[in-house]
Amino acid sequence: MTRRSEIADLLAAVAAGAVTPEEAAARLAARPFVELGFANVDTHREERQDAPEVVLAEGKTPDQVVAIARALDEAGASSVLVTRASAEVRAAVRAAIPDAEEHELARAVWVRRRVPEPRGTVVIVSGGTSDGPVVHEARIRAELLGVAVRVHEDVGVAGLHRLGNALPDVMRADCVVVVAGMDAALASVVGGLAPCPVIGAPTSVGYGSAHGGTTALNAMLASCVDGLAVVGIDDGLGAGTVAARIARGRAE
Amino acid sequence: MTRRSEIADLLAAVAAGAVTPEEAAARLAARPFVELGFANVDTHREERQDAPEVVLAEGKTPDQVVAIARALDEAGASSVLVTRASAEVRAAVRAAIPDAEEHELARAVWVRRRVPEPRGTVVIVSGGTSDGPVVHEARIRAELLGVAVRVHEDVGVAGLHRLGNALPDVMRADCVVVVAGMDAALASVVGGLAPCPVIGAPTSVGYGSAHGGTTALNAMLASCVDGLAVVGIDDGLGAGTVAARIARGRAE
Amino acid sequence: MTRRSEIADLLAAVAAGAVTPEEAAARLAARPFVELGFANVDTHREERQDAPEVVLAEGKTPDQVVAIARALDEAGASSVLVTRASAEVRAAVRAAIPDAEEHELARAVWVRRRVPEPRGTVVIVSGGTSDGPVVHEARIRAELLGVAVRVHEDVGVAGLHRLGNALPDVMRADCVVVVAGMDAALASVVGGLAPCPVIGAPTSVGYGSAHGGTTALNAMLASCVDGLAVVGIDDGLGAGTVAARIARGRAE
Amino acid sequence: MTRRSEIADLLAAVAAGAVTPEEAAARLAARPFVELGFANVDTHREERQDAPEVVLAEGKTPDQVVAIARALDEAGASSVLVTRASAEVRAAVRAAIPDAEEHELARAVWVRRRVPEPRGTVVIVSGGTSDGPVVHEARIRAELLGVAVRVHEDVGVAGLHRLGNALPDVMRADCVVVVAGMDAALASVVGGLAPCPVIGAPTSVGYGSAHGGTTALNAMLASCVDGLAVVGIDDGLGAGTVAARIARGRAE
Amino acid sequence: MTRRSEIADLLAAVAAGAVTPEEAAARLAARPFVELGFANVDTHREERQDAPEVVLAEGKTPDQVVAIARALDEAGASSVLVTRASAEVRAAVRAAIPDAEEHELARAVWVRRRVPEPRGTVVIVSGGTSDGPVVHEARIRAELLGVAVRVHEDVGVAGLHRLGNALPDVMRADCVVVVAGMDAALASVVGGLAPCPVIGAPTSVGYGSAHGGTTALNAMLASCVDGLAVVGIDDGLGAGTVAARIARGRAE
Amino acid sequence: MTRRSEIADLLAAVAAGAVTPEEAAARLAARPFVELGFANVDTHREERQDAPEVVLAEGKTPDQVVAIARALDEAGASSVLVTRASAEVRAAVRAAIPDAEEHELARAVWVRRRVPEPRGTVVIVSGGTSDGPVVHEARIRAELLGVAVRVHEDVGVAGLHRLGNALPDVMRADCVVVVAGMDAALASVVGGLAPCPVIGAPTSVGYGSAHGGTTALNAMLASCVDGLAVVGIDDGLGAGTVAARIARGRAE
Amino acid sequence: MTRRSEIADLLAAVAAGAVTPEEAAARLAARPFVELGFANVDTHREERQDAPEVVLAEGKTPDQVVAIARALDEAGASSVLVTRASAEVRAAVRAAIPDAEEHELARAVWVRRRVPEPRGTVVIVSGGTSDGPVVHEARIRAELLGVAVRVHEDVGVAGLHRLGNALPDVMRADCVVVVAGMDAALASVVGGLAPCPVIGAPTSVGYGSAHGGTTALNAMLASCVDGLAVVGIDDGLGAGTVAARIARGRAE
Amino acid sequence: MTRRSEIADLLAAVAAGAVTPEEAAARLAARPFVELGFANVDTHREERQDAPEVVLAEGKTPDQVVAIARALDEAGASSVLVTRASAEVRAAVRAAIPDAEEHELARAVWVRRRVPEPRGTVVIVSGGTSDGPVVHEARIRAELLGVAVRVHEDVGVAGLHRLGNALPDVMRADCVVVVAGMDAALASVVGGLAPCPVIGAPTSVGYGSAHGGTTALNAMLASCVDGLAVVGIDDGLGAGTVAARIARGRAE
Repeated sequence: MTRRSEIADLLAAVAAGAVTPEEAAARLAARPFVELGFANVDTHREERQDAPEVVLAEGKTPDQVVAIARALDEAGASSVLVTRASAEVRAAVRAAIPDAEEHELARAVWVRRRVPEPRGTVVIVSGGTSDGPVVHEARIRAELLGVAVRVHEDVGVAGLHRLGNALPDVMRADCVVVVAGMDAALASVVGGLAPCPVIGAPTSVGYGSAHGGTTALNAMLASCVDGLAVVGIDDGLGAGTVAARIARGRAE
Repeated sequence: MTRRSEIADLLAAVAAGAVTPEEAAARLAARPFVELGFANVDTHREERQDAPEVVLAEGKTPDQVVAIARALDEAGASSVLVTRASAEVRAAVRAAIPDAEEHELARAVWVRRRVPEPRGTVVIVSGGTSDGPVVHEARIRAELLGVAVRVHEDVGVAGLHRLGNALPDVMRADCVVVVAGMDAALASVVGGLAPCPVIGAPTSVGYGSAHGGTTALNAMLASCVDGLAVVGIDDGLGAGTVAARIARGRAE
Repeated sequence: MTRRSEIADLLAAVAAGAVTPEEAAARLAARPFVELGFANVDTHREERQDAPEVVLAEGKTPDQVVAIARALDEAGASSVLVTRASAEVRAAVRAAIPDAEEHELARAVWVRRRVPEPRGTVVIVSGGTSDGPVVHEARIRAELLGVAVRVHEDVGVAGLHRLGNALPDVMRADCVVVVAGMDAALASVVGGLAPCPVIGAPTSVGYGSAHGGTTALNAMLASCVDGLAVVGIDDGLGAGTVAARIARGRAE
Repeated sequence: MTRRSEIADLLAAVAAGAVTPEEAAARLAARPFVELGFANVDTHREERQDAPEVVLAEGKTPDQVVAIARALDEAGASSVLVTRASAEVRAAVRAAIPDAEEHELARAVWVRRRVPEPRGTVVIVSGGTSDGPVVHEARIRAELLGVAVRVHEDVGVAGLHRLGNALPDVMRADCVVVVAGMDAALASVVGGLAPCPVIGAPTSVGYGSAHGGTTALNAMLASCVDGLAVVGIDDGLGAGTVAARIARGRAE
Repeated sequence: MTRRSEIADLLAAVAAGAVTPEEAAARLAARPFVELGFANVDTHREERQDAPEVVLAEGKTPDQVVAIARALDEAGASSVLVTRASAEVRAAVRAAIPDAEEHELARAVWVRRRVPEPRGTVVIVSGGTSDGPVVHEARIRAELLGVAVRVHEDVGVAGLHRLGNALPDVMRADCVVVVAGMDAALASVVGGLAPCPVIGAPTSVGYGSAHGGTTALNAMLASCVDGLAVVGIDDGLGAGTVAARIARGRAE
Repeated sequence: MTRRSEIADLLAAVAAGAVTPEEAAARLAARPFVELGFANVDTHREERQDAPEVVLAEGKTPDQVVAIARALDEAGASSVLVTRASAEVRAAVRAAIPDAEEHELARAVWVRRRVPEPRGTVVIVSGGTSDGPVVHEARIRAELLGVAVRVHEDVGVAGLHRLGNALPDVMRADCVVVVAGMDAALASVVGGLAPCPVIGAPTSVGYGSAHGGTTALNAMLASCVDGLAVVGIDDGLGAGTVAARIARGRAE
Repeated sequence: MTRRSEIADLLAAVAAGAVTPEEAAARLAARPFVELGFANVDTHREERQDAPEVVLAEGKTPDQVVAIARALDEAGASSVLVTRASAEVRAAVRAAIPDAEEHELARAVWVRRRVPEPRGTVVIVSGGTSDGPVVHEARIRAELLGVAVRVHEDVGVAGLHRLGNALPDVMRADCVVVVAGMDAALASVVGGLAPCPVIGAPTSVGYGSAHGGTTALNAMLASCVDGLAVVGIDDGLGAGTVAARIARGRAE
Repeated sequence: MTRRSEIADLLAAVAAGAVTPEEAAARLAARPFVELGFANVDTHREERQDAPEVVLAEGKTPDQVVAIARALDEAGASSVLVTRASAEVRAAVRAAIPDAEEHELARAVWVRRRVPEPRGTVVIVSGGTSDGPVVHEARIRAELLGVAVRVHEDVGVAGLHRLGNALPDVMRADCVVVVAGMDAALASVVGGLAPCPVIGAPTSVGYGSAHGGTTALNAMLASCVDGLAVVGIDDGLGAGTVAARIARGRAE
């Protein structure tokens, strides 16, 4: 039963006298989140948006992360994903939730519960080996939301012929994510070829004039290619979420 | 017959001796664009990406715009859209292509030829009346690509209750575009509610600390909402293209 | 006896011949601060502005901090608060002033002497758990200035329903402080609802496009909500001071 | 009867069978704003926040401004204020609402209806003559919200003795607004003296290194004075609103 | 006789008693430039660097430009080129120097005197029609320095197949100049293919996130292609000069 | 009689009973400036700092400028200088003060009253003809403060030999002002040669990467030359004031 | 046999029936790079551009670097250069490829295989000792590409006479690289003297207003010297590559 | 005998036949600096500019610093000053030059040889205790150049009365240096009072909106006080040099 029908039912129950107005107000006040003292865990998000809340470990203690992860798990999330997790945090989560998995490069730890059957395909291409952390954060998130993911790394524009291997997958994808730092020229090249929606994920890879990813971000936003949408710098998580939503929708 | 099968046929013809290797090379060199001297019109884009090339009028003379628009029209584009078009340019295009339509606020002029039947729905919500030009550029582009569009303008966060009217459409959309300047808080609020992909289109509306749209852009990219993708400042065109691609895909 | 009446008395004494002009000049030169060689402690500030000077520990040695704290304490400050204090500094202050208290997350150490009876209420709401240091620095400062403080943490816009618990307090507050990083959308949402003055305290929480708090700051300043005032990035101290002044004033 | 009690009544009526659940849902959907097609006028704001909505004329046609102003007036706003209004817009509003008043320098036009009796005093000091537009926008807004305002212009730090005339008013104010461009040093000087809350309003006055007001804004935010709160660049309106709220609250 | 031998001769003449030390000092003080009161015309530059001084018309009156152009012409420059010249300036120069030529788009006017025989080839490719002014300023400068120039305009990355026509020229060039605004991805694509030195000339074409050419500039500097050198934003002149120097050198 | 001795006298008079304390307070309150309603004219500045207040015309009406100029003149300023004055303002001042002089390029109008005899020499060198407005604003201000000024314009680093003519003056100056835009390399070259204090005055000359003078400013501040001090972008006035103070001091 | 002739041969073989179209497609798909799983090594680059691919060690593990270096070496690169290599990476490469050489300051390790005979001369001048890492990275790269390099370090503009020693080399060079941080004035001074192409390599040397090399970069781009081309901040590698290409070309 | 007279003598000797032109050329080539391989020590600077070269230790090894310091000492510098020196560097210099002195806070080590008798007085005032490193670097440099220095630290604008103690010194100084971070309001306050030249030295003290000293720098440059000159962020050395030059000149 979805939450929206609950409200309708509640109004009907008030009308039927089965519930007093006061009690209706009280029930409406019962929020769908778990209070941990230091955090409000949004256990309602998955129902609302088809994607469970993710735990950003940065700026939290291992104990806090474990408590939030457990709360989400107990509330019935389809998966629990912790990102930006140090080795210490990943170990703590795995100790607390034994069947959790982790990925060192992506700095992620997660547990699968009721991950939907894959529907639709996301293709991730990256400009260089150093873009790996963002690539794999995006991949893991997308897989946990129920899409198939194919990855092609180190497809730099400096040697365009390397794009060749990736092109067949790009042309068949439901959504393409281009992960690139420095000048991010790969996003424009792929964006000009792919027939599906293309998401740019700028990375902070590069030094000097790369300005910590700002150059890549601006280049993607100013791209001569019409119809490229972009997430924030190094935001593999966001790229994975939006790509999975697009791909599942198209594959329905 | 698609271009890709032409290439296969050509290779087969070479194998069959019907075409010499030299002639094959010559045919491959015949590019799918029309040369106008000052511009290469990409008549091939629609076949490649399901969306016809758009003419950005800014920085071009009315004569140049008319010539490019005609070339696209004659090459069989499903629609021809001219954006950032001054009143003078719009008049010139309408004189040259009598059944062209125009929209003053959006600064657009276009002609429909074989616009696909609408499939899927894009909902556009905006923060204020001044975001209108971006709203309508996005709307027109999306409609020409074959989606239904519903628009809710002036839904500012300062009075959240105004969002109520728009919410039912937002919850049913295949893709939502949030057009907002200043602090762009509306994007986070909608992004936290909508179950479909949400595209942020930051605008240059606002003064002082709005920094010409940079604040709105950064706020959207730094949003606490996971899975929001963003186009460039005032880029209604790009928002329309990507939203239409997503919506048509989901509605298939 | 206030300092202003001292001057009047001095002029009268000169007129009466009780004080020579030369001595009057000398007395005027006797400044109301304690010279420590490396610092001028402003013992006069509390009398002038109803708020004692605060010691910013950053860039000072533990010995310097202790010396300044003691000087303020001996000069009769209603409380002595040391902010941005490392564990080492906090330990040194507590060793020197045994009844001092500390808060690890807020990086603060303080001693209460003649803290005024609470008058008025400040409500602090924050966007996420990571905003905690700023939240608690603001809270401690405000409490030491004599207001009641109620705190609601992790009330992110991504799940607006979480704001519900905090709203009753927000609606009754004499002043609300919104502590938020990233896109700071919470400030606009609360600013559009609260009937009292609202102070935005942007934090450096977030990465990439959060630009170390600049995005949150600009978003608050460019807010579509009229009448939001803002302090500097991560400036919990300033937020606490201004909020306490407002709240005490309103509750008089 | 406040809106909040309406909801309680509605629930009670549902319980009593006087209203069907369906009708209750419909009534909840009846939003407290007037739809004009291109704008949602927030007639509910004054009830919610004790301050009527203001019309920002920038980016709107004179006809649009007049329509919105009339709608607010007819909905019973205590005053209607239009800011950033060109001479043309001001003339149009005055033609439509004959008892409207205007101020050329402040670029404002307004009509008083049920402006509350003044309670509390706001003192506005400015650094230079060129800060006038911001000074007077703030003054008009504050007066319409029901406070007394005293203005001291051209009190630059370059000649500190000029501050003398303003000091007695500053020391007695319920809230001080410092309007300053360039280096905005005046804000720190006043902020270090005034015993009440001080609001900084940075202006875009100055050239070169003033960077359009950014230098003044940053200087105010980085002020060595603890407890200064700031509004956006050239945002006289916001300064007036927040100052009036503070001053009325303190004077209660 | 070159200037360097003059100095040797002068020293010898001093030694021989034919010139007094005082006179030698005086002669050394006679600088190789023409003083016009408001400008020092560097008639020596061509001898020193194989390229005559260019007149930047911006910020000068037509009379000043004409006077400088004439002085350079009379001093024997191989060509006189005036850039950033308004229609009024161009007309004035053509009236004063009847055999001068002009180019409206490039905003240039020039006269050829002893332009060297072309040696080496510069190929200029541009991303879009709007880059024309920079393209042609570079072309004219390079031609006046004695190289052949081939131009391919509107070779955007969004339709990579359009690059095909230009590639044969690119592969045979002595130097390639890539003129591009927005994301400047074309520079990386060409830079990864061309075997000769490649010069990037970023343009201010684009809006919003193009940031007036800064995005294109940074993208070129951060390019994943090793060995791309860049000139300033919209600096067609500089691109022409450096490309001509490279091309003539390689073709020797 | 200087103001400082007045205070001593006043205190003595109080002691002598010749003045009551109340009257002493009143006299202290009599500020040394003229109130015009919209401006506080600082007639005291010249006595305090040996330099009369200057009128910045930007943002003031011709009437306001004339009123302020007259007030300064009547208060006995040694000279009255109006800067950033449009042709209209200059004409208004000259009509009001018949013996005023003006300089079109410098956008200045002034009247000499008791300009001190020149003492010391300021040498101004500029990088290009377009720096003229800043050069002459600095020159006029310095001359009115009583120094001799020698100007060398268009001494660009691109042709270092042009510096030769200026060097003898540079080596003999009491203070050198280097006015330069673009890369401002001239400041470092001159700063490495001159034995006197060198003031850098960056200008907004240049386009693209000159960033409106910010590049010149930063280059001067980051100069490898130790001991260069800098004024704001295009601030000829400030450069003239500080250079005159230095030069007069050294020549005493 | 070059790759281009291979394609021609393949087409001919298809025509001759010796190869089926399907097999032709398969062969075309065999890309000229080595797949390592985490990286695509571009072994084709040297053939295409006369310069072997370089390994940027930053962001890669020692094992990854060694694997890529070996792959390039085995594929027949004329040299293998690893840049931005920590001591650990350099040791690993030297252990794996015993005849590798290293340079601590330049943080480079490399092995020479078939480095071309030097042709042409590159002269590198630097502003200060701290620019050394960039100087030597550029030098090593250029030498490996087959040019002679002469280096003059610490030739700051603050003492222009120090440039004297370097000038004879500068005047005879085929290409000059100016490596400079802070204000980078040296680039303009050298650029105004050298008759060959001049490449600016800005460095992050300097603090405060040097802004991590941005000031040097902007100063070079805004240089009053016409015809200076620039690489990214601290990009010694790029400077070496482009300078070697230019110098070899000119020396042919 | 100064170097300038040497040149005159040399020319005369050539005229007299006592020196051949060739030998004259050779002597001119003998540069007044010491070559150390990695650095050119400018032993000529003191003769040219009355101030010995300073050694910036940052980015140099202790051995390099010692070698340069010794070279300057042996060449007869009036003092040798090493700045930005770590404890290790300071120890190395003191081991090599036993009578060297050091200052930990200023991170400086130096040796006095023929420091001129003090002439003139520089007064340094600072905003806070944390500005100490810049204060003392400036003080040491100025003292070594032969001026008396008086220091007043922690004179923040937040408590203006603390300025009182410093004012008598400020009013009598030959040059004032204001060292301040954050909003740098102290510079404007002092600049409006002091009758001598005032040098602003912005510091990186402060966090958040202080932007590493950029806010202080811009505030000083945009100061409403006419005639303030500024050095780079944290550049105590430059402030000391320029202030000493001004003060010695005025005191002659």
